Amino acid sequence: MGTKVKGSPDTEYRYFLKEEEMTSFTLRTTARCEMIDITERLAALVKESGIRNGNCLVFVPHTTAAVTINENADPDVPRVILAVLDRIVPLADRYRHAEGNAAAHIKASLFGASQTVFIESGRLVLGTWQAVFFCEFDGPRTRRVQVGLTAG
Amino acid sequence: MGTKVKGSPDTEYRYFLKEEEMTSFTLRTTARCEMIDITERLAALVKESGIRNGNCLVFVPHTTAAVTINENADPDVPRVILAVLDRIVPLADRYRHAEGNAAAHIKASLFGASQTVFIESGRLVLGTWQAVFFCEFDGPRTRRVQVGLTAG
Amino acid sequence: MGTKVKGSPDTEYRYFLKEEEMTSFTLRTTARCEMIDITERLAALVKESGIRNGNCLVFVPHTTAAVTINENADPDVPRVILAVLDRIVPLADRYRHAEGNAAAHIKASLFGASQTVFIESGRLVLGTWQAVFFCEFDGPRTRRVQVGLTAG
Repeated sequence: MGTKVKGSPDTEYRYFLKEEEMTSFTLRTTARCEMIDITERLAALVKESGIRNGNCLVFVPHTTAAVTINENADPDVPRVILAVLDRIVPLADRYRHAEGNAAAHIKASLFGASQTVFIESGRLVLGTWQAVFFCEFDGPRTRRVQVGLTAG
Repeated sequence: MGTKVKGSPDTEYRYFLKEEEMTSFTLRTTARCEMIDITERLAALVKESGIRNGNCLVFVPHTTAAVTINENADPDVPRVILAVLDRIVPLADRYRHAEGNAAAHIKASLFGASQTVFIESGRLVLGTWQAVFFCEFDGPRTRRVQVGLTAG
Repeated sequence: MGTKVKGSPDTEYRYFLKEEEMTSFTLRTTARCEMIDITERLAALVKESGIRNGNCLVFVPHTTAAVTINENADPDVPRVILAVLDRIVPLADRYRHAEGNAAAHIKASLFGASQTVFIESGRLVLGTWQAVFFCEFDGPRTRRVQVGLTAG
């Protein structure tokens, strides 16, 4: 990260070319469908980066997983979300493609592959009840989460 | 905003550290489910910022609300979207968590907590029929909308 | 694009004001509902821009279309996604507004108007099976896709 770099114009030039940091981490899911709160891992990356203000972009490089923002205060919420999603996506056998995970693909597009959260004063700007969840729709698997931190 | 700042390298350095402006506003919803067109409020913030080109990130810090982009020319569209969403999310009593608003949480994840719109020549770049809507799924409440403007 | 510009502070200043490039392209859809893989077109724009690291924001300026990220390795996946979406959105006649395309509006909000993908070493950072799809929900039409490339 370049926020501490200062000096000649050339140095600053390099700074801005390195304005964004992309990093990633893996996680192991343990069920077919699962929502895993990754807020603390993201907050740790923000802290480590030294970025005070900017954005945090979270991207899931998978087609049967997603990332969403929802409530974690009540542990019922993620459980209910997964249960209702199973009812929303009406998967008759004729919709199962070779791998049998068509529902997971649809859920991935419904929730989306990325979320962006503001960073202010070195912290993620989330609402009181908000948490960032990695959503597994075809587990258990080892998954990767990409995180881009941009100083604003 | 720093677009007018120019001069020594140090000044420019400060400029880029202030490249992004985060601001927010509140709104009062008046129904359980409601889509409120916030395009003009966003356009006013863009104008006020002086940013000519960049991005506008709109983020809702709530878990029973969302932000979406859809049509406002025909007032039927938001009404129909809300009605169909009620049918898509099949909320039997067994899916109601303690607060009784599980459907609202699911709708929030289906539509998403944020939207990004380009800014060009000082204006939001939206399609002819597009408007940005704050989506209330568990109102009436007082809600907050966070807006980040980035000069690009 | 400014990545090759270097020299006086003023030059650099201009560089960063031009940090983001917005471009667009059109495509012709051929069915009422259709998912068109636009990954190669995006990759070509990234290559042309010379940007090594940053973000690619894809935005659809339409209210009956969307952009999503999903699998293209198995051609069944896009087909199944469209078929299941038709079942998820329960369109009785009473939900048809004047233009008769209410389902398309709802699908647009479910999938979303934009996607962001990281750029690293001059390439889009997508998972092994991921492709970026333009989603037509009310075709056939001529459509536009806006692409913003930000050097990070």
